[in-house]
Amino acid sequence: MGNRLAMIAFGGNALLRAGQKGTYEEQLRNVEQTCGQLYNLIKRDYDIVIGHGNGPQVGNVMLQHEAGRKVFGLAAMPMDFCGAQTQGSIAYLIETGMEKVLRRAGIDRRVVSLVTRVEVAADDPMFLNPTKFVGPYYPEVPADGATYKEDPRGLGWRKVVASPVPLRISNIDIVERLAREGNIVITVGGGGIPVVADGDGHRGVEAVIDKDLASALAAVTMKADEFYILTDVPKVYINYRKENQSALGTMTVAEAKKYLAEGQFAEGSMAPKVRAGIRFVEAGGRECIITEASALDDPACGTRIIS
Amino acid sequence: MGNRLAMIAFGGNALLRAGQKGTYEEQLRNVEQTCGQLYNLIKRDYDIVIGHGNGPQVGNVMLQHEAGRKVFGLAAMPMDFCGAQTQGSIAYLIETGMEKVLRRAGIDRRVVSLVTRVEVAADDPMFLNPTKFVGPYYPEVPADGATYKEDPRGLGWRKVVASPVPLRISNIDIVERLAREGNIVITVGGGGIPVVADGDGHRGVEAVIDKDLASALAAVTMKADEFYILTDVPKVYINYRKENQSALGTMTVAEAKKYLAEGQFAEGSMAPKVRAGIRFVEAGGRECIITEASALDDPACGTRIIS
Repeated sequence: MGNRLAMIAFGGNALLRAGQKGTYEEQLRNVEQTCGQLYNLIKRDYDIVIGHGNGPQVGNVMLQHEAGRKVFGLAAMPMDFCGAQTQGSIAYLIETGMEKVLRRAGIDRRVVSLVTRVEVAADDPMFLNPTKFVGPYYPEVPADGATYKEDPRGLGWRKVVASPVPLRISNIDIVERLAREGNIVITVGGGGIPVVADGDGHRGVEAVIDKDLASALAAVTMKADEFYILTDVPKVYINYRKENQSALGTMTVAEAKKYLAEGQFAEGSMAPKVRAGIRFVEAGGRECIITEASALDDPACGTRIIS
Repeated sequence: MGNRLAMIAFGGNALLRAGQKGTYEEQLRNVEQTCGQLYNLIKRDYDIVIGHGNGPQVGNVMLQHEAGRKVFGLAAMPMDFCGAQTQGSIAYLIETGMEKVLRRAGIDRRVVSLVTRVEVAADDPMFLNPTKFVGPYYPEVPADGATYKEDPRGLGWRKVVASPVPLRISNIDIVERLAREGNIVITVGGGGIPVVADGDGHRGVEAVIDKDLASALAAVTMKADEFYILTDVPKVYINYRKENQSALGTMTVAEAKKYLAEGQFAEGSMAPKVRAGIRFVEAGGRECIITEASALDDPACGTRIIS
């Protein structure tokens, strides 16, 4: 369609929310609301690619596998398999919600979802020091070869996995082409199914690829014009939750790096988002917008990272 | 690539086999073996679309949801959601296995998997008399509004769902285009995620669309040249398992209908496959081949349904 291409990343908690039971009906309502908010970008004639997270979803799937093992003796599957499951179910929900929003608005665009593997390096240094807790708590370390660490609150042992850097996204050229034809394309669900090169192909690994970083890589590879990172605050703050807290309208890459070095942004929260934005803008992207979905009706929303 | 287009349907039991524990390693081995057998078609320069079943997989997912509800209090999801999960995981396994087979053969083709919804009619008469048993056994009928019937062997109550006729496949034009460019495309996993028209869009329903019938619809819509239905026997038989059992080399649509009327083919087994083949050939398809994956090295394999 010759429009600007926007890559949009949002968290799995946009669909499976803390404080809700996570029923089917709740998830359908949540996804329709989120899609309605994304519509503010669609109506401005962007071509759109969506990368979504899967934190709460893959957590539930891992619990369900563990429960299935206990109750029915079923084989519990590793994280790559569980992540692939969430790509299917979350894409289905987004397709359903987005279709309703588009049809109500009389917009003739379709939603296409690709199962997406993302390659990481087998020798990524993050594999030497896995830090991300995932899945169920165990009273003792399961003998499955995975790495377990004791929960700091004493809740038991929990699998820890690495968060390696995404290097390549499967079929991203097809994603780009479908998006530039006007389809709304869903990819890199949960940061992508993590795989490493292995002989003639790839093999899955237990890891969690940061979904903002995977989406940044998608945005860079497709030469997207804008990269939206949706979160639960309208803007990025410095001196967050202090007396002199200040919301940022724009920040240059240099400023963003300075703030990161000062520890202004929390690790596991705003810091990786700002790093993903820097990655995008340094590679030539026009701007990265960090904001919340409900602010998208304002074209000047959020904090903009620019070169 | 201008090649002949072949639609291939195979069962979920090609990957998750009876008698195995269903571990990750077993499933990886199974999928590589199946992809190696499909390679016999790829090397003959077919463009290829794959529609796979998900019977054992979605059964496990439903058990895992039930176990997760019991053990962790998680919300158990309906069949459309569970089926979407299996589309993600099965496509991931096939992508991984097929990529290895292609690279070993030095073939530069890719695998692309689309999450696929399939529309059925809300007033499909099958919804009035659901007959397909799915999911866990319950000691009494759960109060979730679904239909339950008592297992004839006395194992408890089990959800029964309809098997409605597939009418439309989401994004099948994109599937066709990607396949005709040489990509091996995976779609209609598990017969597709069943949805019905609902106001501005679609909503999921608890149902199981026959994967051979969904694949036949895909084959017809894409004007595929050949439609392969892979099963666990090399050919279709009349007088199956009787003294005068006879393997069929070809059968015309008229012969196939006659045999069906005679009850030569078991319901829930060969009969729906033969009906799917008839559907394809009657709509103009050149031939439907019913055989087993291990026979594909013989270009004259299987039983051929022709007009």
